[in-house]
Amino acid sequence: MKRLAILSFVMMLFSASYAQQALFGGQDIVSPQINSNNTVTFRLQAPQAVKVELTGDFLPTQKRQTPMGEMDAPGVAGLTKNAQGVWEFTTPNALAPELYSYSFIIDGVSVTDPNNVYMIRDVGSVTSIFIMGGGRADLYKVNDVPHGTVARRWYHSPSLNMDRRITIYTPPGYEQSKGEYPVFYLLHGAGGDEEAWIALGRTSQILDNLIAQKKAKPMIVVMTNGNAGQQAAPGESVKGMYKPSFMGDTRMDGDFEKAFPDVIKFVESNYHVKKNKANRAIAGLSMGGFHSMHISKQYPDLFDYVGLFSAAIMPREDVTSEIYQNTDEKLKVQFAQKPRLYYIAIGTADFLFSANTDFRKKLDENKYPYTYYETGEGHIWKNWRIYLSEFAPLLF
Amino acid sequence: MKRLAILSFVMMLFSASYAQQALFGGQDIVSPQINSNNTVTFRLQAPQAVKVELTGDFLPTQKRQTPMGEMDAPGVAGLTKNAQGVWEFTTPNALAPELYSYSFIIDGVSVTDPNNVYMIRDVGSVTSIFIMGGGRADLYKVNDVPHGTVARRWYHSPSLNMDRRITIYTPPGYEQSKGEYPVFYLLHGAGGDEEAWIALGRTSQILDNLIAQKKAKPMIVVMTNGNAGQQAAPGESVKGMYKPSFMGDTRMDGDFEKAFPDVIKFVESNYHVKKNKANRAIAGLSMGGFHSMHISKQYPDLFDYVGLFSAAIMPREDVTSEIYQNTDEKLKVQFAQKPRLYYIAIGTADFLFSANTDFRKKLDENKYPYTYYETGEGHIWKNWRIYLSEFAPLLF
Repeated sequence: MKRLAILSFVMMLFSASYAQQALFGGQDIVSPQINSNNTVTFRLQAPQAVKVELTGDFLPTQKRQTPMGEMDAPGVAGLTKNAQGVWEFTTPNALAPELYSYSFIIDGVSVTDPNNVYMIRDVGSVTSIFIMGGGRADLYKVNDVPHGTVARRWYHSPSLNMDRRITIYTPPGYEQSKGEYPVFYLLHGAGGDEEAWIALGRTSQILDNLIAQKKAKPMIVVMTNGNAGQQAAPGESVKGMYKPSFMGDTRMDGDFEKAFPDVIKFVESNYHVKKNKANRAIAGLSMGGFHSMHISKQYPDLFDYVGLFSAAIMPREDVTSEIYQNTDEKLKVQFAQKPRLYYIAIGTADFLFSANTDFRKKLDENKYPYTYYETGEGHIWKNWRIYLSEFAPLLF
Repeated sequence: MKRLAILSFVMMLFSASYAQQALFGGQDIVSPQINSNNTVTFRLQAPQAVKVELTGDFLPTQKRQTPMGEMDAPGVAGLTKNAQGVWEFTTPNALAPELYSYSFIIDGVSVTDPNNVYMIRDVGSVTSIFIMGGGRADLYKVNDVPHGTVARRWYHSPSLNMDRRITIYTPPGYEQSKGEYPVFYLLHGAGGDEEAWIALGRTSQILDNLIAQKKAKPMIVVMTNGNAGQQAAPGESVKGMYKPSFMGDTRMDGDFEKAFPDVIKFVESNYHVKKNKANRAIAGLSMGGFHSMHISKQYPDLFDYVGLFSAAIMPREDVTSEIYQNTDEKLKVQFAQKPRLYYIAIGTADFLFSANTDFRKKLDENKYPYTYYETGEGHIWKNWRIYLSEFAPLLF
């Protein structure tokens, strides 16, 4: 057996595989770079590109003409090329703490940053991300605290006659404990799936951190797939690797709500949990807020905690499903049973703001108590991470 | 409460968020498109780009000049632009069944395909992927079979004095069963982590499919992090979202091997498993093969099944760790205890082929029985998926 030094092993591995990146089109620069003054520098090695721009949710929005009229569009900034062919842009101001997403635009084509392996998919598009720490954004980071477990499982839904994928967060210590835990059902919006809250919502980081700070109780978080016709997130079912589309698998026809007890039965027979109203919460964003509203009033004995995050408050009485009939009567029954928390959160710029305002008026008129949390901005994940980190501490 | 039809809700959502993709730089084309004759068409809308090329592991490799001399480089193909500014390339031939990866090169910059949300990270680079089904590649797809659970957990390693992340596959039916399962420890290579076998290796799909076909026994697969200095994959630890580098956290100093009993203890006290040699397997690729070789001979009572996939067979007697001393004596003890399977797999073009040939000679000279599986090509994930799908059926 020849004596090979580890260095030569490394060199050989480099030449065998890594070299493909290092030597052929790979980039040896850092992007994004968070500077000590909280500005951020973006870089792209592109000597042959004619124009390199950047778009991201930290840039001021711009008005743009579209086929649907003048609209707010994400801001765009130009990068400047140096003599080595590296394009660069540094934000003029420090960025506030937040999880940000961005894309490069190379000669007109929006792409992810090839020097940044951290990205998230939102429906059918993938963007590069980074976290500017500090303040609330520290909840979105992996910190030196005990970590829960995130499991991707499958359960059978008799109501939908389908095996379905589900994402379940169990808190630190759950596996070793003999105790019973409360359960928080957390629902995604239209175009989302059982991956959305984990990836875009940073649920496991937020819960790990809130629990470590003793701001939230240890709880199980169940992220089910809210598209009644869909078994699993794109790429995770027998449908294979198709191009996800916004309303491709979204129905809002009552089937998901009707089948929801299947999820509860699965969780309560597979996890050591507390099986009563006081230890069940349900919340969701946009379509998931709509689902939470309808599920909690359809089954008024199930949930003591209900959260509507930027909820799609909209009547569906035109749909035949029994779920959407007699909303007022069902709300009356639900509130007669005095849920401990009915929570409504929305941004003032959300296109659903006035629908939520109307809904709150209805609650007010009937003297149904609720907690209201208002932020700026609109129908965006930044708000949903905030709502999750505000809502979870109020539970159980 | 105003009556909003679902259509207007959808329209508003589109204008609120999706529109950003659809109207500002989003692309409404399909790429990649697997054609009925098993050719594949790639498309990119890039009216302003000067040159669009494609590189992928389905293209013939090319010789290229590099700072390290002439080397085999991934093939490159040019795309052709139509009048609408959409660039297109169709493979001249049908592709064989396989999981393929590729990148676009837009005016000289390698990027992922913005129309394909399916990608995998290998160390510090991310490529777009697709699966051409058929043959063995059907094992890599999600099929209509019962699915196991994939959990990301954390365990404490007293030997390394560190909390560490671990990926664990439990087979379909595990949670409902009272039975005890065998355990297969599956180790990644240098530059990898506890995500590598799940993402690049398609472990959960391969196991789901082999188990459904009754070709493999239901087993637990434990994918630990083989970098003794690393708590978790990049982005999953307190180190945050740094740029991963090839040997950044790889040490090969014996600490990982020495600490391996911590992993077994964790698994055997947290899962209902069979706790004897006949029900433990260990295998790994490259550095993970090196680890499997050293762990299995250091603890000759632990594993009846050992797999070296493209193993980094290399003496480390220069390293002070006791793990690497007296290799020959330890192998003698290990083989005296007659492991049921000692399996060596490698590609003929692997840079480690001759080191593996030398190692097999040593085994032959000592009449140590082993099973040898040879493929073409080299040190690539294609081979490691093949080795996993050949090795798993031989276990237990």
